Amino acid sequence: MKKVSEQIPGYTYGTPEVAKSPFSLQELEDLKTSAGFTGEDERCLRLAGEVLADQTRQIVEHWRTKIIASIPNLARHSRSPEGHSILEYLKNSNLRFEQWILDTCLRPYDQDWANYQHEIALRHTTAKKNKTDGVRSTPCVPFRDIIAFIAVMNETIKPHLAEKGHTADEVDRMHRAWCKSMQLQMALWTAPYSVACPVTETEP
Amino acid sequence: MKKVSEQIPGYTYGTPEVAKSPFSLQELEDLKTSAGFTGEDERCLRLAGEVLADQTRQIVEHWRTKIIASIPNLARHSRSPEGHSILEYLKNSNLRFEQWILDTCLRPYDQDWANYQHEIALRHTTAKKNKTDGVRSTPCVPFRDIIAFIAVMNETIKPHLAEKGHTADEVDRMHRAWCKSMQLQMALWTAPYSVACPVTETEP
Repeated sequence: MKKVSEQIPGYTYGTPEVAKSPFSLQELEDLKTSAGFTGEDERCLRLAGEVLADQTRQIVEHWRTKIIASIPNLARHSRSPEGHSILEYLKNSNLRFEQWILDTCLRPYDQDWANYQHEIALRHTTAKKNKTDGVRSTPCVPFRDIIAFIAVMNETIKPHLAEKGHTADEVDRMHRAWCKSMQLQMALWTAPYSVACPVTETEP
Repeated sequence: MKKVSEQIPGYTYGTPEVAKSPFSLQELEDLKTSAGFTGEDERCLRLAGEVLADQTRQIVEHWRTKIIASIPNLARHSRSPEGHSILEYLKNSNLRFEQWILDTCLRPYDQDWANYQHEIALRHTTAKKNKTDGVRSTPCVPFRDIIAFIAVMNETIKPHLAEKGHTADEVDRMHRAWCKSMQLQMALWTAPYSVACPVTETEP
């Protein structure tokens, strides 16, 4: 499997340390059906993976430093309670963020993938946030903020999909497949979120 | 306000019967920021509303009879426990579904809008499902299925946005604004869902 770096601290995809998704493979297939996610989308995601492979660092940097950092209610989740940056945390979670782009495009959407979705979601909730990197920060990222930010990721990924000279139609197909994957991922994230991050959570 | 029909049973937008969103206007503004939803998106949604106004019936028919009806784990939510269609329920909820397209495009995203989002979400959970129309059906629609089906709505709305001869760029802008609105709406729906429809819910 293609990796963005030899060492990615805290990246445990496919290992026994990963939480188990409460969703069965059949439920995952049902979700693909509900999202209209087909074999053609898989093909387009593989292509997107090739297109994005040498751009993951630039994309994550853009999201982190140009967008998230300028939105206080998002930025706080990677900062200390006093509002300071935590460099090691950013470095490690950015590498995982980059790898997540590749995994979205290149991994088969099987039980391992569903399990790792569950694991990543848990790492955004009170169950596991901050623990992977041993840092002090907000106890959880409200699910609503993640769902909202998906819109930004969907919008800003598109120019990167066009970087390698594919036709507008191929770029559209890759983008549609990406957007469907985001919905599938958010659908899987509903499980840990409904128990581990009360929506009535307010500013910490 | 433009309505798809003089009478829309159960459509209570802006009335005192509507539930109150737990999110403040400030939180709604924060969500818009997190989703990158701007004044330009509002303008594009207004245009989309003009473009879609005479197509809402066709769009909802397509979603209901061509897509949802053929996916058992989605279709069951508008059927009786014995699997029968409930014609009155479909008729009324389809009218509300049509009106929701217009409201998505033409309503200001203010407290009334946030409240009605909360109300619609509740009507998909154990708190209020079936009650508006007095029918027997599944107790709730799992949030994951709604998030997944958003991908289908996003994909299938696009050709309708192109129906009135706008340029590809204008269609893209309308579509981006629509997709951002879907994320905003799902973000607001996290609140009722985290309390009123356990994710561990299985087949009824």
